[in-house]
Amino acid sequence: MTITLEQAQQAIEAAKQKSIEIGTLMNIAIVDSGANLAAFARQEGAWLGSIDISIRKAKTARYFDMPTGEIGKLSQPGGPLYNIEHSNGGLISFPGGIPIKNAEGTIIGAIGVSGSTVENDHTVAQAGVEAIS
Amino acid sequence: MTITLEQAQQAIEAAKQKSIEIGTLMNIAIVDSGANLAAFARQEGAWLGSIDISIRKAKTARYFDMPTGEIGKLSQPGGPLYNIEHSNGGLISFPGGIPIKNAEGTIIGAIGVSGSTVENDHTVAQAGVEAIS
Amino acid sequence: MTITLEQAQQAIEAAKQKSIEIGTLMNIAIVDSGANLAAFARQEGAWLGSIDISIRKAKTARYFDMPTGEIGKLSQPGGPLYNIEHSNGGLISFPGGIPIKNAEGTIIGAIGVSGSTVENDHTVAQAGVEAIS
Amino acid sequence: MTITLEQAQQAIEAAKQKSIEIGTLMNIAIVDSGANLAAFARQEGAWLGSIDISIRKAKTARYFDMPTGEIGKLSQPGGPLYNIEHSNGGLISFPGGIPIKNAEGTIIGAIGVSGSTVENDHTVAQAGVEAIS
Repeated sequence: MTITLEQAQQAIEAAKQKSIEIGTLMNIAIVDSGANLAAFARQEGAWLGSIDISIRKAKTARYFDMPTGEIGKLSQPGGPLYNIEHSNGGLISFPGGIPIKNAEGTIIGAIGVSGSTVENDHTVAQAGVEAIS
Repeated sequence: MTITLEQAQQAIEAAKQKSIEIGTLMNIAIVDSGANLAAFARQEGAWLGSIDISIRKAKTARYFDMPTGEIGKLSQPGGPLYNIEHSNGGLISFPGGIPIKNAEGTIIGAIGVSGSTVENDHTVAQAGVEAIS
Repeated sequence: MTITLEQAQQAIEAAKQKSIEIGTLMNIAIVDSGANLAAFARQEGAWLGSIDISIRKAKTARYFDMPTGEIGKLSQPGGPLYNIEHSNGGLISFPGGIPIKNAEGTIIGAIGVSGSTVENDHTVAQAGVEAIS
Repeated sequence: MTITLEQAQQAIEAAKQKSIEIGTLMNIAIVDSGANLAAFARQEGAWLGSIDISIRKAKTARYFDMPTGEIGKLSQPGGPLYNIEHSNGGLISFPGGIPIKNAEGTIIGAIGVSGSTVENDHTVAQAGVEAIS
């Protein structure tokens, strides 16, 4: 079970609408169940450095099947996963990446959003997730 | 002057329609005038290795403002750009990448397509270009 | 549909038996349908440089759903895919990587073998494939 | 003196049985005395991001001949090995990697396990170690 292109584009469209609604400029990436890029969109003027971050957030969320911010709580100094970011060619462990499930609850991919505060990034990613689940 | 997200998505949609028409499964990438990823879509079942190749084709076409196949003619053994593929973290110099111009003829980005023969890749990329120019 | 660990280990065991039979020392890698590593084994004394090559062969075979040697025929100077090896962080395009299909003919992963001549590598990989298909 | 493939596969099998017993899904990697990959297995459904982490844990344990968690105690902010994770292309310094010794106490390789909490990762790695020592 993996996300279809149609679903990936629906998630991007929903995320983009949320981004417009809250007045941000975002990079939005979708990966499939194998953590491979399925679709991507960048609003004009969104941070260039966030292209890579949005893709890494989506991959990180699928790599560990949890929101990226959960990993960041565990990777702090003194935490159990300290410096896990050095693996997999570079992880991003702050909010903005969320697994995408289908109606049956199976994880079929993930979304990664970057371009604003991590709270806004997470909010926009959540809108993408809800367009599918 | 750079490509808008709306234009990038139009180019992807036109390329996807051409891909469906000729019976292929493609990865389609659009970069802006700064050679940064603007939009991407992969038809389900398209080659996984072509994600990276489609993005590199788009970047290569914008890096040198010419179709990728033109670079490949010059990068052969004995040619003036022999092994230019080693630069920029890895170029792709066979057909499937084409600059995108606006109505005034200014280059505003590029498209890269990968997933079939290089002839089909180029045909699908050309359909994307024509949706904008 | 992706290869199970049991199937991956069966493929490795069959490949290893073939390697012993023909008197070689091999590195044998299996990737799943997402081109992610599923299982690996190195016979003691096998070339150290072939660890990476066997994994890249398996990934390359799944990236393009064809034996790696087929890609190598197309990536020669003057060929349509000249220097494709620069993509995806480094491809290996000589024989020894083969897609793995299930009984229904669906590709569920790939095997990559390295440690001897490319003819021997391909022979050992083929033995692994046949243990599953 | 280095671990044999047979020993490596025994360690993986013992680790896998422990993983099944405690209800986890693990990636299990074995490196030899040269810190080169000797064998690997991923239980279906185990985290994709843990492929790389399990291999890095095994290498890290052999690089410094101690359990990875010991390194993590020294690499914290203010500690003597602060940010050692930046070396060797990326180390993993939390629990789950353990050197493997033979009956005479000589280190012949290491095991790295990733897929659950670091406590579970360490427990499963320990089961692999004990299958050999």
